[in-house]
Amino acid sequence: MTDISNDKFRDECGVFGVFGHTEASTLTQLGLFALQHRGQEACGIVSSDGEDLHQIRRLGLVADNFGEKTLKRLPGESAIGHTRYSTAGKKSVREAQPFSVTCQHGQIAVCHNGNLPFANKKRLELEEQGAIFNSTSDTETILHSIARTQAKDAIEAIAKVLKDTEGAFSLLFLTPEALIAVRDPRGFRPLVLGRTKDTWAVGSESCAFDLIDAEYVREIEAGEMLVIDKKGLHSHRPFDKKPKSVCTFEHVYFSRPDSIIFGRSINESRHKMGRQLAVEHPVDADIVVPVPDSGVAAAIGYSAESDISFRQGIIRNHYIGRTFIEPSESIRSFGVRLKLNPIQDLIKDQKVVLIDDSIVRGTTSKKVVALVREAGAKEVHIRISCPPTVSPCYYGVNTPRKAELIAAQMSVDEVCRYIEADSIGYLSMEGMLEAIGIDKNSSCVACWNGKYPTAIGNGSKDIR
Amino acid sequence: MTDISNDKFRDECGVFGVFGHTEASTLTQLGLFALQHRGQEACGIVSSDGEDLHQIRRLGLVADNFGEKTLKRLPGESAIGHTRYSTAGKKSVREAQPFSVTCQHGQIAVCHNGNLPFANKKRLELEEQGAIFNSTSDTETILHSIARTQAKDAIEAIAKVLKDTEGAFSLLFLTPEALIAVRDPRGFRPLVLGRTKDTWAVGSESCAFDLIDAEYVREIEAGEMLVIDKKGLHSHRPFDKKPKSVCTFEHVYFSRPDSIIFGRSINESRHKMGRQLAVEHPVDADIVVPVPDSGVAAAIGYSAESDISFRQGIIRNHYIGRTFIEPSESIRSFGVRLKLNPIQDLIKDQKVVLIDDSIVRGTTSKKVVALVREAGAKEVHIRISCPPTVSPCYYGVNTPRKAELIAAQMSVDEVCRYIEADSIGYLSMEGMLEAIGIDKNSSCVACWNGKYPTAIGNGSKDIR
Amino acid sequence: MTDISNDKFRDECGVFGVFGHTEASTLTQLGLFALQHRGQEACGIVSSDGEDLHQIRRLGLVADNFGEKTLKRLPGESAIGHTRYSTAGKKSVREAQPFSVTCQHGQIAVCHNGNLPFANKKRLELEEQGAIFNSTSDTETILHSIARTQAKDAIEAIAKVLKDTEGAFSLLFLTPEALIAVRDPRGFRPLVLGRTKDTWAVGSESCAFDLIDAEYVREIEAGEMLVIDKKGLHSHRPFDKKPKSVCTFEHVYFSRPDSIIFGRSINESRHKMGRQLAVEHPVDADIVVPVPDSGVAAAIGYSAESDISFRQGIIRNHYIGRTFIEPSESIRSFGVRLKLNPIQDLIKDQKVVLIDDSIVRGTTSKKVVALVREAGAKEVHIRISCPPTVSPCYYGVNTPRKAELIAAQMSVDEVCRYIEADSIGYLSMEGMLEAIGIDKNSSCVACWNGKYPTAIGNGSKDIR
Amino acid sequence: MTDISNDKFRDECGVFGVFGHTEASTLTQLGLFALQHRGQEACGIVSSDGEDLHQIRRLGLVADNFGEKTLKRLPGESAIGHTRYSTAGKKSVREAQPFSVTCQHGQIAVCHNGNLPFANKKRLELEEQGAIFNSTSDTETILHSIARTQAKDAIEAIAKVLKDTEGAFSLLFLTPEALIAVRDPRGFRPLVLGRTKDTWAVGSESCAFDLIDAEYVREIEAGEMLVIDKKGLHSHRPFDKKPKSVCTFEHVYFSRPDSIIFGRSINESRHKMGRQLAVEHPVDADIVVPVPDSGVAAAIGYSAESDISFRQGIIRNHYIGRTFIEPSESIRSFGVRLKLNPIQDLIKDQKVVLIDDSIVRGTTSKKVVALVREAGAKEVHIRISCPPTVSPCYYGVNTPRKAELIAAQMSVDEVCRYIEADSIGYLSMEGMLEAIGIDKNSSCVACWNGKYPTAIGNGSKDIR
Repeated sequence: MTDISNDKFRDECGVFGVFGHTEASTLTQLGLFALQHRGQEACGIVSSDGEDLHQIRRLGLVADNFGEKTLKRLPGESAIGHTRYSTAGKKSVREAQPFSVTCQHGQIAVCHNGNLPFANKKRLELEEQGAIFNSTSDTETILHSIARTQAKDAIEAIAKVLKDTEGAFSLLFLTPEALIAVRDPRGFRPLVLGRTKDTWAVGSESCAFDLIDAEYVREIEAGEMLVIDKKGLHSHRPFDKKPKSVCTFEHVYFSRPDSIIFGRSINESRHKMGRQLAVEHPVDADIVVPVPDSGVAAAIGYSAESDISFRQGIIRNHYIGRTFIEPSESIRSFGVRLKLNPIQDLIKDQKVVLIDDSIVRGTTSKKVVALVREAGAKEVHIRISCPPTVSPCYYGVNTPRKAELIAAQMSVDEVCRYIEADSIGYLSMEGMLEAIGIDKNSSCVACWNGKYPTAIGNGSKDIR
Repeated sequence: MTDISNDKFRDECGVFGVFGHTEASTLTQLGLFALQHRGQEACGIVSSDGEDLHQIRRLGLVADNFGEKTLKRLPGESAIGHTRYSTAGKKSVREAQPFSVTCQHGQIAVCHNGNLPFANKKRLELEEQGAIFNSTSDTETILHSIARTQAKDAIEAIAKVLKDTEGAFSLLFLTPEALIAVRDPRGFRPLVLGRTKDTWAVGSESCAFDLIDAEYVREIEAGEMLVIDKKGLHSHRPFDKKPKSVCTFEHVYFSRPDSIIFGRSINESRHKMGRQLAVEHPVDADIVVPVPDSGVAAAIGYSAESDISFRQGIIRNHYIGRTFIEPSESIRSFGVRLKLNPIQDLIKDQKVVLIDDSIVRGTTSKKVVALVREAGAKEVHIRISCPPTVSPCYYGVNTPRKAELIAAQMSVDEVCRYIEADSIGYLSMEGMLEAIGIDKNSSCVACWNGKYPTAIGNGSKDIR
Repeated sequence: MTDISNDKFRDECGVFGVFGHTEASTLTQLGLFALQHRGQEACGIVSSDGEDLHQIRRLGLVADNFGEKTLKRLPGESAIGHTRYSTAGKKSVREAQPFSVTCQHGQIAVCHNGNLPFANKKRLELEEQGAIFNSTSDTETILHSIARTQAKDAIEAIAKVLKDTEGAFSLLFLTPEALIAVRDPRGFRPLVLGRTKDTWAVGSESCAFDLIDAEYVREIEAGEMLVIDKKGLHSHRPFDKKPKSVCTFEHVYFSRPDSIIFGRSINESRHKMGRQLAVEHPVDADIVVPVPDSGVAAAIGYSAESDISFRQGIIRNHYIGRTFIEPSESIRSFGVRLKLNPIQDLIKDQKVVLIDDSIVRGTTSKKVVALVREAGAKEVHIRISCPPTVSPCYYGVNTPRKAELIAAQMSVDEVCRYIEADSIGYLSMEGMLEAIGIDKNSSCVACWNGKYPTAIGNGSKDIR
Repeated sequence: MTDISNDKFRDECGVFGVFGHTEASTLTQLGLFALQHRGQEACGIVSSDGEDLHQIRRLGLVADNFGEKTLKRLPGESAIGHTRYSTAGKKSVREAQPFSVTCQHGQIAVCHNGNLPFANKKRLELEEQGAIFNSTSDTETILHSIARTQAKDAIEAIAKVLKDTEGAFSLLFLTPEALIAVRDPRGFRPLVLGRTKDTWAVGSESCAFDLIDAEYVREIEAGEMLVIDKKGLHSHRPFDKKPKSVCTFEHVYFSRPDSIIFGRSINESRHKMGRQLAVEHPVDADIVVPVPDSGVAAAIGYSAESDISFRQGIIRNHYIGRTFIEPSESIRSFGVRLKLNPIQDLIKDQKVVLIDDSIVRGTTSKKVVALVREAGAKEVHIRISCPPTVSPCYYGVNTPRKAELIAAQMSVDEVCRYIEADSIGYLSMEGMLEAIGIDKNSSCVACWNGKYPTAIGNGSKDIR
């Protein structure tokens, strides 16, 4: 079957950790549950009881895998966890994080959101020096480097290794005594700090704090290494300073609308993108309809600015199961219909503005436009709340190759004809950055203009 | 843990059937998937290969239980299926439908949406006559009555039995040769007919047709018994005529917004309820926020009528799993937070109109109001798109006892104080019926006024 | 794959029950575990808490299905249970016993070892009178008859119905208040009574008592209906007297060697059969080798009488799993090798007497002879501890049709050639009965001489 | 519950491998199935498709875990597999073998039967050099050492590393191109070579060849490293020569009676032990009864030599499931009764010679003697087919600590009194070695005399 969610850039992973709570693994499970949208193929938790680390990793969703019985096997007052997407063919528990190993610096667990473009090269070097690898993940190279580094303890070794590591990394480490949260000096991926009473929490997005009743404190800053142990918080700056390049796409699509990342509310960014889109690409229409759920906030903004009625003209089915067999006598738009269904009496004979966050291959957009036309729309105008995506990401986002990105292969007009819309409008780069409130020089917009803030390395696109 | 979905009236079951397709059970699985919202605790399919019936019933969701392998064990060109809620303590496959038995009229399967208030009495009579029961379900009494009825075939027996059966029933029967769809003469519960090429489909709501690319044809009418076999459609009218009393709550909450039932679009009804609610209960506020997902359509209507901005101020998490353990050091509003999370920067310092479809016990509404206040709302005004619910349902809806219905125990002002809202407004009966476009004399509004269209019987509240 | 156990007559079912113990379902599980050899495809337990019956049925083995958690759902001080073989294609939980229903006489559960040859006829009659059937089992007809019988209580109804029932039945019934054990007047199948302190136990074989530390008291007699309730034991004789015809094959193969049934030790019978076989069919050989495990006791007897060394020349693998795939480049005797492996250095160049309990289709015997020859045997003489089996059983044993029984189609010499043995010897009827110590006029030997003690009815061979 | 199998020395693991068959993983599964008695807690297979290795490891039995679907995920023409016991508390898939890693010499998988007494020391050294560990297994140290060794390929690296490794190891390695079988220079554990057509097989015991229709070729010799690749067999001798010390206990208990190991039939050894036991410890008795299944072969020998009748007086139940709950009102000898049941009419009033292979803690023997007495035996004489076991094993056998070995704490007479036997007799060391036909100077008898053939190292008792 077709999985329409395959036609999105996919954020790669979510990380979450807790220090100083008698039910650390339970809180971690709740935090991961709130970050489930960042990775749905595998999940794992490692806890520390002060002496030993305990690890459980599973394929599938957090809520299906971490019940009471399982959590009891993860004792202790600190824990870290991970939700993950995998690349095709490597759907194995072996690749699931956190990894947990023993080395000369004792027991260390790690989980990672990001990507290390030079990992393959590093891996070959390490193998030549006698390292053995258990996964295909770039994250494993960090562990080997730590194990080989002379240092007074794990924390010093981590700092030494990461100082020399190029790439995007929001990392959580757990040792029997400490939780360490690190964000690379460019700060590609988000990482935030929260607190509830004496318990510290760290996670990819602030929405993970709400569920455990913790309050958002601040970002882990780009280039910061924050050590949390019994004595409190210790902030280190082990890296050479580099220009910031936070991932703009987090605001466009990846993060949950109720999160704050990079110091800014996602919902606010998206609402403003919608407003700006209405300014840049107005249209004479009857209703504004979002492609649910990611297009909703921008559609409300578009409606507010344009004064065209906002209507939920497409319903999304959330009872998603494993797979469905397509009847052999094939149904039109089968894959997309499993998730999305238009409300005919609302759409019939209307001029519809369809709001979506992005177009990747164009195949799903084409199906959605067809769906809306079959429901009787007179006109279908599509509006996209970011610029055309023309380049793959090497910083922890699962993107197709350039050749598959429709906007890299076609002009905007050609895209419009391909998806059979009556008109199309992409938000401008300037409009988008203005809406997000982030300076162009502090952000990464490589997927829209192909200008990468770092050398790309061996082209590795391993995802964790 | 607290399950916030427990604080809703719950529709009881969904039924779906197909006749004349080589992949009848696959289509039935897709139809049931679209009707999953009508029952999530058990599901089942019975297919006919022309000679024998094949039955599979399971606890859990359709998508988790009916994969390729399972569907292969359900061969044939016709099939019926069921999704079900169970009452507490009877979560057993034994109670899952369709039931399938052998009797003097051959093999017969049945599934039921509705309730038979006199089933307990009938059951005792049947037992005295030698019947043995395998479930606690009222539906089983229908099968026994059919088995005891002298008739030339199963179809005649079904007609004879149902003629004498009081209550709410949208029933599908399957025999090796025919699919029979019956709706009681008052037409309490919906049942609709669809078609794709030579294949006929019947189901609780029209949204089930969209997924299999079938088009909505018409309602099975109240009092109609429609027999579908190789020769085509045969419409019978075995019942004495009675006044119609279709379930208004289907439009308020149960049915999917993209469905047409009772000849009317659900989305349109809800939008108009929202508009009318704004007319009846205006308020000076900054934003209109729906309690997702059921309050969305009415909230858009309220916003359109009142010209107050519609904003998705509460995010719903759809990755719902089995259960979550509440940390022992309890989190405020834990249960509701698993599903709902407010967007703080949107709500902070705002006067909020919160739109919900109904209030049952009031416990969840109280938590949602608290959630919005904790997010910083200046004022919280709640608006409900139907009248106060004061009476339990005996026609196939899972409702608490009267003593648990907050509006049966408190005045509207008291409800407002209990849930700690700044103001409250319920839609009037007249406003609601006007919005739905259904005549008061053709509908059942017993849950709002306590006037039941039939004798209630032995008070049985068995759900199927 | 080939399953060599398919080439045996298979006993049909085991039944076990307990009255008067706070852990009745736990004891029942242990009893069923000891009777697992009587049925391995499904198992079930029904318990009574004094008011209600609780039922759990499962496909598979007792030890895999009735763990601590499951047993907790079977509360009460009395219980009955069943282990079952199913016929091909009907491997469904629906057919698993005990059945448990509600009727005018209250809740009744039943499990059955035996067969009712006239059940199909009875079933049609019952259907004409309005009965509905949930399984294909003949046992279900008994429940319907009971439900239709006017009587002061369940016990009287059971007695009335069974009085008019022809066939083989060792039955256990459970009501909220009593456990009822019944054996048909001819006493085809075994049923024994045991006791530990104030707890009564009933079961198919006495080996089930040893595990729960109960002692064997006596047989439930042919034609006896024993009611066990809070007041104690009540023995009834509801049947007209008929000549006894106990199943001789129980001593030949079905029962466990450590059981006492029909008042006689199985092991003793088999040992004497082996001795008698040596008297009737001596041979000049080097070693006596049993086909494990069923041929062991007779082989020891043959060795003792003949003074030829007993050697375990064939090893049986007991780690039997679900299924094994045969490599496409097929292995000689693949199926039989999964279970049996010859010890080459013991067999090489030896004249071997192979002792088995019976030959059914001859296919497995042929493979075993080949196995022993491949291991280097100079001669292979086969000796069978009962007469040639020439007729199917209609009293609760799963046998192939007559056309598949090799001894019904070939002379003894032809069988010998077919299985490629150097010589063959079957125990004589007289020798066998002498060894078992049971009078010919009190036993059923129909599978060896085709003379059935009752009319056979509709030829139904339903197994339970 | 009590598990009587805990009161045995337990062999540690079985290994099996195949080279040159299109269904290599299917054959490996069959070989492991035949070696299931050597380890029942975990199993795994790694296959090679010529380019990549594929790994699946699971907790539980081979037959339950490697079905058709799983085997399809293990493509290729070579494979190795492992069955494993785990030590308490480390029942994790992480510890299951074969391990499979990537290093500078490419992909390498390994599985191990044996023990490396100096592994803990080596582990610390490796960690200091930067190695990271994923399991607690000593086998993992071998992989790290290989990864760190400069060599022209994996094979040369393996040879270099093992040359410097002290301990007991029968190892199988798999690389994409070759299967390597190695036995340590003392040859503690068995390893044999088989062949069917162009396919080579290696395994712990020859019984694994019978099932796949391969024939036993020869032992992998002590100190041999056999490389099997597309060009054929290449035998290397990388080790310094050392005196042989093969494990005598393999013949006493671990290996299957139908196996040939160390060039000798297990069954023949056991039969002769039984005969010798009758010579050394005669007794005036009525019947010889084995403790099944391990005592059978020796009991037949004892009977043959003594002319006392061999009788299967104790029946073993092979339907062993997960666990059984002991009823709270405890049953005498509960644990042992789940597996063993005496035949009362055979034992009653008899003088019984009970034959067992060994006594470890004495607790089970005490229960078995009690069982036989409760069945009515007049006298119970116990005979053990090896000398008193007084020392733990450090070469790959799971043994209790010395303090738990009854014979290390008590004299033979005291043991007799403790288990409440009428007399006891252990086979002498000389008698045992004579029966096995192995020279004392070529065998390890440390568990009986405490003289270890190597330095014991750090006392590590890791089991694989």
